[in-house]
Amino acid sequence: NQALNQVLEGLANDSIEVVDLTQVLNEDTPVIQLPEPFVNTSSFKSTQISKYDATGPVCYWNDLTLGEHCGTHFDAPNHWISGKENDSVDKIPAKRLIGEARVINIKAKSEENPDYCLTVEDIREYEAGYGEIPKDSWVLLYTGWSEYVNGDKFFNIDENGLSHTPGFTPEASKLLVERDILGVGVETVGTDAGIAHTFNPPFPSHHFMHEANKYGLAQLTNLDKLPPKGAILIAAPLKIEHGSGSPMRAIALV
Amino acid sequence: NQALNQVLEGLANDSIEVVDLTQVLNEDTPVIQLPEPFVNTSSFKSTQISKYDATGPVCYWNDLTLGEHCGTHFDAPNHWISGKENDSVDKIPAKRLIGEARVINIKAKSEENPDYCLTVEDIREYEAGYGEIPKDSWVLLYTGWSEYVNGDKFFNIDENGLSHTPGFTPEASKLLVERDILGVGVETVGTDAGIAHTFNPPFPSHHFMHEANKYGLAQLTNLDKLPPKGAILIAAPLKIEHGSGSPMRAIALV
Ligand SMILES: Nc1ccccc1C(=O)C(=O)O
Ligand SMILES: Nc1ccccc1C(=O)C(=O)O
Repeated sequence: NQALNQVLEGLANDSIEVVDLTQVLNEDTPVIQLPEPFVNTSSFKSTQISKYDATGPVCYWNDLTLGEHCGTHFDAPNHWISGKENDSVDKIPAKRLIGEARVINIKAKSEENPDYCLTVEDIREYEAGYGEIPKDSWVLLYTGWSEYVNGDKFFNIDENGLSHTPGFTPEASKLLVERDILGVGVETVGTDAGIAHTFNPPFPSHHFMHEANKYGLAQLTNLDKLPPKGAILIAAPLKIEHGSGSPMRAIALV
Repeated sequence: NQALNQVLEGLANDSIEVVDLTQVLNEDTPVIQLPEPFVNTSSFKSTQISKYDATGPVCYWNDLTLGEHCGTHFDAPNHWISGKENDSVDKIPAKRLIGEARVINIKAKSEENPDYCLTVEDIREYEAGYGEIPKDSWVLLYTGWSEYVNGDKFFNIDENGLSHTPGFTPEASKLLVERDILGVGVETVGTDAGIAHTFNPPFPSHHFMHEANKYGLAQLTNLDKLPPKGAILIAAPLKIEHGSGSPMRAIALV
């Protein structure tokens, strides 16, 4: 295939760049902190098996504990009650993990108002500049939030214990479902705003995306290294049987 | 980028196919069984957090336990004592996860002799047909072993407790290092033959590849759906800090 040969050439001569959209996984990797009655997920933990020693003279390796929604991760449709009859992470065709990245920049708006949620007008403005969002693309919300990953601003919790981080309005999520995208990607801990449990419906991005058998990508980084259109994003969750999602590697070709 | 646009078009019109090289992860996923004094790795375990119930009214999710070398997985150079100063899995540039797949077929030979190891002659014969193995390619050993994943033949253990599965001769591994490939990929539980602990050096594929800062891919499937050359393989391990490897998603564009 000629296109594939050209990609191999482009990688070899650096005219195609590979951007790693993945945060490092370690014991400091943040996991979502949901209010009661929710039980929360495990954070990442690594336990050494052997390190060139008596229990493994030639090798080093570890065992891991982590949640399906820990670190840079993938939300499958069955993660949400509205998508409970839709695909688990192992059932998603590999083809539907790969698509064009469409990056919408709401960094300035999110800096001014950390509760900022993408609106239908933001989408129309993006489309006026870059064309209608195509079917089977990944829509990425660039907020700048990945810079805060190890600081207080990542959760941005107020004196009442509420988290203030950006997300999607219900109307924007509905329009993206109409566009028939693969799913949405964000830099924040999850695909909904920090206060989205107070929205109607609660967690509208999860609700509308997963209801339509679409996916979510959370805790991405390096979105500032992507153009507004034209990059290829490969989302690579583990193939966990019946899984609701998975920690993943996310990579873009630019 | 024109090549990237052509790939997006090819995906949309099905002239490019996406082949999933990943085995499903579940509690039956086999993990390597090493002889004493080795301590072995954990197998995969999933523990439900919530399922649209009191502890998570709107969501379903699980916590996981698994080894870095469980299921379809990636071996980083620091997995082996010969590569202990080389890269951990999080330090590998994303660009080095993507390369041309070069598939060498030793299925008939492995069926006849389950201890069969790839030879220098096999590589020369492949190269006579398909050209010299290029720098930064993935060399995949097609043995047919993925079909056995949930049966006794996967480990193929004899009456003395020895496992008989195919792998690489030390000389073949050295030649592949000379070719400056990204690494090797196999369908078996690890990148060395079942009896490779008796070889000189022990586990030669691990020894020579990781010494040269090269990688291993284990427990792949669907290699029969790849051409001998020209497919693009994307190996996507988790970005585990200091990790010796990772369960992964492996995907090919054909
Ligand atoms: N918002 C949520 C509510 C309940 C469970 C998980 C989430 C996530 O965002 C997640 O998938 O990380
Ligand atoms: N051969 C081995 C010896 C010791 C530890 C691990 C291995 C593997 O193959 C592996 O990485 O699955």
